[in-house]
Amino acid sequence: MTIKYGVIGTGALGGFYGGMLAKTGHEVHFLFRSDYEFVRENGLRVDSILGDFHLNKVNAYRTTDDMPKCDVVLVCMKTTGNKHLAEQLKPILHSKSVVVLMQNGLGLEEDLALELPKTSIAGGLAFICSNKIGPGHIAHLDFGKLIIGSHNLANCEILEKVISNFQLSGINIELAPDLKFARWQKLVWNVTFNGMTVVLNTTTDQLMASEEARELSRELMLEVIRGANACGVPLKESLAQQMIDMTIRMKPYAPSMKLDYDYRRPLEIAYIYSRPIETARKAGFEMHKVAMLEKQLRFVQEQY
Amino acid sequence: MTIKYGVIGTGALGGFYGGMLAKTGHEVHFLFRSDYEFVRENGLRVDSILGDFHLNKVNAYRTTDDMPKCDVVLVCMKTTGNKHLAEQLKPILHSKSVVVLMQNGLGLEEDLALELPKTSIAGGLAFICSNKIGPGHIAHLDFGKLIIGSHNLANCEILEKVISNFQLSGINIELAPDLKFARWQKLVWNVTFNGMTVVLNTTTDQLMASEEARELSRELMLEVIRGANACGVPLKESLAQQMIDMTIRMKPYAPSMKLDYDYRRPLEIAYIYSRPIETARKAGFEMHKVAMLEKQLRFVQEQY
Repeated sequence: MTIKYGVIGTGALGGFYGGMLAKTGHEVHFLFRSDYEFVRENGLRVDSILGDFHLNKVNAYRTTDDMPKCDVVLVCMKTTGNKHLAEQLKPILHSKSVVVLMQNGLGLEEDLALELPKTSIAGGLAFICSNKIGPGHIAHLDFGKLIIGSHNLANCEILEKVISNFQLSGINIELAPDLKFARWQKLVWNVTFNGMTVVLNTTTDQLMASEEARELSRELMLEVIRGANACGVPLKESLAQQMIDMTIRMKPYAPSMKLDYDYRRPLEIAYIYSRPIETARKAGFEMHKVAMLEKQLRFVQEQY
Repeated sequence: MTIKYGVIGTGALGGFYGGMLAKTGHEVHFLFRSDYEFVRENGLRVDSILGDFHLNKVNAYRTTDDMPKCDVVLVCMKTTGNKHLAEQLKPILHSKSVVVLMQNGLGLEEDLALELPKTSIAGGLAFICSNKIGPGHIAHLDFGKLIIGSHNLANCEILEKVISNFQLSGINIELAPDLKFARWQKLVWNVTFNGMTVVLNTTTDQLMASEEARELSRELMLEVIRGANACGVPLKESLAQQMIDMTIRMKPYAPSMKLDYDYRRPLEIAYIYSRPIETARKAGFEMHKVAMLEKQLRFVQEQY
């Protein structure tokens, strides 16, 4: 079986991962917004640490109504657009399609499953430093590992096929045995550094250079870990120090929410903050500091 | 008995309150720093909602070594300079002098008493909107009430005399029956709005216009109230809503710490944040969100 791929949201993530699949000969159909005309005329350019490439012919669309049915749909847009996701997906799904939500946060799959109860849903987590630097122009700067995991798939055969396709395209990819675990684990970093860099208008290296900010980062991470624990997800507390150490070693980095803030785009507060806070609260654990960061972020966004 | 007053730190607070006493004929000796030369030549100007006035002849000093002994010393400088306060006070204290710490925060009197164990110490809390707008030039914009209370005075006779002097000078002043209560009560507002306006780089009216920021402000206030309760100070939780309502009615206002931030001056974190956090923690109550605000403020200050 040959998988026909769809990419919803062809930006830093969708352009890179979809582009890598297309480059190795897979059939990939890309949904664009503002870059549609440009890519139709000029193709898609990816400058990657794995090797630059240019796709001259791109299956580009402006709306999912014009796209063919796809076997695997990689959802690579920001969660701030998820309100209309189910409607957008309907035209390209057949009875066996799998939707992979390559987005950050918690509860994404659950929300989509409420609207598309018969659809197979998976989640994807990208550990990558990639930016869209111009129309139809992606720069992949560092890392690139992808983790995907099933939310409600009857079996993981198709995910294994996807993993094989990605691997042969040169992507470091793994199957997550427990998607919830993987989502919470990534949240430990995302909750801390997305919010802190926005509220304090700074970058990870400046935070890591400050003893006070390092300590507060550790405290935020511990809250997320304990929140996860309350929800039955066995993250270890030692993960906090590991992530601090990793962040100290990283190049100066502005997380995606900081870029959203810099360009005054909507912040992904709902799925990265509100949902985890709510989920932990229901499980009996109050993430005090994370809840404070959430409110500060909402205030910051209101001031746009 | 005629009280001889000393004012340590002749800025927005000391210039106004000391100026009001001097204007009504009291002997007041003022310590200046950068404004010394200017005031020697030009006097002290106070533009006040209670009526503008100008003091042509001011007992101005550059160091306490040149000042006479004073009966009542009003300490009106920022707490960030308190490290050298005891040394500065020594030359102007006699055996019956009373030092009134007209500063914000917690533990000020305790710290000074450790260094000057034989000195009578009181505290003062100013509810005033007043700024220094130029050399030797104070603008008193709103409010002005003063609350003073004993820390370790054998009796309150002299404070009652001070109160009478202030009242006859036109100042709304009251004796606090419980200084600790008064300090915690003022902290409820100060902890919340000093930190929030600095970290979010905003003003009270913008915070109050946001539902998220109002809610977070209420939560911070409740933490301070519960911290106070843990320390045996019976503040009521209803105080939070009262202070929110009062702040909504206030004119747009930048608290003193916000002005310190705007001018990149040291922030009064130690006595307004660290000490209350520590004091509540020792009493068994963790102020999670206040502790987060403290660390954010320290980070902000480190970036100067």
